[in-house]
Amino acid sequence: LEQRHHQKSLDLATRTSIVEAEAWVDDHTVPLDTELVAIGDAVGRVLAQEAVAAIDFPFFDQAAIDGLAIHVDDAAGASTYNPLVLEQGTVDGPLLPTFGVAVSVGDRLPADAEAILPIGQFEARPGGRYEVIEAAVPGSGITPKGSHFVKGTRLLGIGQRPAARHVGILLAAGLSEVQVVRRPVVRCLLLARSEPLGDQNGPMLTALVDRDGGLMADMGSTARDQATLCAALSSAAAEPDVILVVGGTGQGSDDASAAALAEAGELAAHGIALAPGETAGYGLSRNGVPVFLLPGSPTSCLWAYELLAGRAIRRLGGRGPAPAYPVRQMTTARKIVSAIGTTEICPMRRLDHDRAEPIVSYMEGGLGTVARADGFVIVPEGSEGYPAGAIVRVHLYEDFDWAS
Amino acid sequence: LEQRHHQKSLDLATRTSIVEAEAWVDDHTVPLDTELVAIGDAVGRVLAQEAVAAIDFPFFDQAAIDGLAIHVDDAAGASTYNPLVLEQGTVDGPLLPTFGVAVSVGDRLPADAEAILPIGQFEARPGGRYEVIEAAVPGSGITPKGSHFVKGTRLLGIGQRPAARHVGILLAAGLSEVQVVRRPVVRCLLLARSEPLGDQNGPMLTALVDRDGGLMADMGSTARDQATLCAALSSAAAEPDVILVVGGTGQGSDDASAAALAEAGELAAHGIALAPGETAGYGLSRNGVPVFLLPGSPTSCLWAYELLAGRAIRRLGGRGPAPAYPVRQMTTARKIVSAIGTTEICPMRRLDHDRAEPIVSYMEGGLGTVARADGFVIVPEGSEGYPAGAIVRVHLYEDFDWAS
Repeated sequence: LEQRHHQKSLDLATRTSIVEAEAWVDDHTVPLDTELVAIGDAVGRVLAQEAVAAIDFPFFDQAAIDGLAIHVDDAAGASTYNPLVLEQGTVDGPLLPTFGVAVSVGDRLPADAEAILPIGQFEARPGGRYEVIEAAVPGSGITPKGSHFVKGTRLLGIGQRPAARHVGILLAAGLSEVQVVRRPVVRCLLLARSEPLGDQNGPMLTALVDRDGGLMADMGSTARDQATLCAALSSAAAEPDVILVVGGTGQGSDDASAAALAEAGELAAHGIALAPGETAGYGLSRNGVPVFLLPGSPTSCLWAYELLAGRAIRRLGGRGPAPAYPVRQMTTARKIVSAIGTTEICPMRRLDHDRAEPIVSYMEGGLGTVARADGFVIVPEGSEGYPAGAIVRVHLYEDFDWAS
Repeated sequence: LEQRHHQKSLDLATRTSIVEAEAWVDDHTVPLDTELVAIGDAVGRVLAQEAVAAIDFPFFDQAAIDGLAIHVDDAAGASTYNPLVLEQGTVDGPLLPTFGVAVSVGDRLPADAEAILPIGQFEARPGGRYEVIEAAVPGSGITPKGSHFVKGTRLLGIGQRPAARHVGILLAAGLSEVQVVRRPVVRCLLLARSEPLGDQNGPMLTALVDRDGGLMADMGSTARDQATLCAALSSAAAEPDVILVVGGTGQGSDDASAAALAEAGELAAHGIALAPGETAGYGLSRNGVPVFLLPGSPTSCLWAYELLAGRAIRRLGGRGPAPAYPVRQMTTARKIVSAIGTTEICPMRRLDHDRAEPIVSYMEGGLGTVARADGFVIVPEGSEGYPAGAIVRVHLYEDFDWAS
């Protein structure tokens, strides 16, 4: 009987297309349940309900300028040659005719005030009086109640992420808390390997999960054998929303992650037509939690995360499915070469505002390419690349200088 | 004797230009001292030193594929008709001729290995032997030591902010910590006011400071009178890097922030040719800490922060001075109107990929405009705006969908 080198768990001749893999992710992820957070903690979170103004803003007729609140008739005909005298009133209670009340920007106006005279159009006089030296137009200097927005105005929509600048408006709208999508909880199992440098994938994945709105709740090392890994995947510990298994995805004799997932749950795919990342896989734990098998090679781990595991985390958290990089139509200054049948991530260097060129591939340049790339082009599996001069969609890294 | 309405602390006829104000900020802010942080904590921080590889990567000749490490001569002439037999060697010690060692992606190669035969080009046989059925090219299947980057390679430069994807490469380069610029510590004094809705500026500024890399270390309310405010500004409490005073900047009778700063330190300017934000001011505390006087009106507070206080915080933290929004050349679909002599922030709504239009101004629309704008155009004080069809520089909010 012929004995093979080892049990071959990965057949690269029958890889799953990235389109199919993304569809699987989309089929197995919907936004999680919601939680109530204070407005100050809502920055960057995903709104699970519309932010609707609970009150008018301003909440009252408000002084738009520093000045004197008056009845318009009391200033009619006023000039430096015909100064009109008003008594000093109080902000409480209605403003009576022939009285004026000094107000500052933002102050609630006394009831019945019709206009604010700006500084310079009146003078304070001894004995608690004001001398008015210009006429006023009704409503001038006043920000009317509800003029910025009225109760019921939709300020932010479902799925929007409040930014720092929105904090003021949400509070002003009478909201103290908002419903946001719960952050996906992620568990990561690193398959142990004798690495003189230690592990790079764990800290990188922690940062990527955080960037995508998830919470890396548990990061542990486990032995590489199928039995140990299967037990870890079946563990009754607090159930996460996504499980990442890093390493053990290849054709080597100690690559058991796919077999372990098949035993501990359901292996949906192993081997993706994606470069880097072709030994990745995915499936479900026995409890239906999506499990992503990420290659141990750092660049493959990065890209399998970006396109598959990250997509799940982003969708569970209510974000858009694609990696959160701005996209720009640019001209490629050199030919981009890609293998038919594989979705390839082609790293790009930006040359100027509208031009970029491919640099040494992730396969060849590894982590060095990660440092050198300004962005990337995703070449679909049906394409063999693009000629020099073609317009391509470049995903640019978010820390890139956009100024033009 | 003529008694004026009140001491007029703000003369809007002699406002400081934004160019002069920015120059003052730049003259009074340089990047702070540095601190050492672990790589996992360096994401988003500003590098204060180059990140230079401490070792070659890979650190050893590494298996690029799963397969069999061999001497090339031992496979010369091999084919299915002429299988060559190798003994099973071990990964420790040099690889001897006529031996083969099974390796997985990422493994350190046994010394003297010359190539890796991929799965399918050899078969394991009983008795610890391999049958080789294809020849091998020297170096095939091997990622040579240092081929991704060599010791001394500059991976990231001073001022760059490591992203999640850089965590792996920095760790792989043998770095466990990096020097980053210390986060600017900010103290905020809110001038108390009887607001039925409470304060919106404090939480908004906390979020803005965090966005710009600062730490809001202290947020307190203080009475509006000059003596109390002066005492608060002179407080010997832990010295921050920037002080924000919110409110009390106008021409009203209870507007004492500028006078208090003049007494407690040095008032450099009060009244800026900026809309919104014209009552803002700035100066130095007695200890030389930059103090920004921000208007209490939320939109004026926001824009005085964005252009002046935020600029100081960003510069102290080693970031670029401008608000961190991507800029895009777009066509304005409608005329943009601005007053000569004032730098105006014109809110814009994006219409499509390359077109935007002005919406109701911040002065008129207040916080409602903050929710409705997709970005803004800064119209310099020398300009009275742009005609419909003009190309303008639109700062787009970072959470905007860039896909095109």
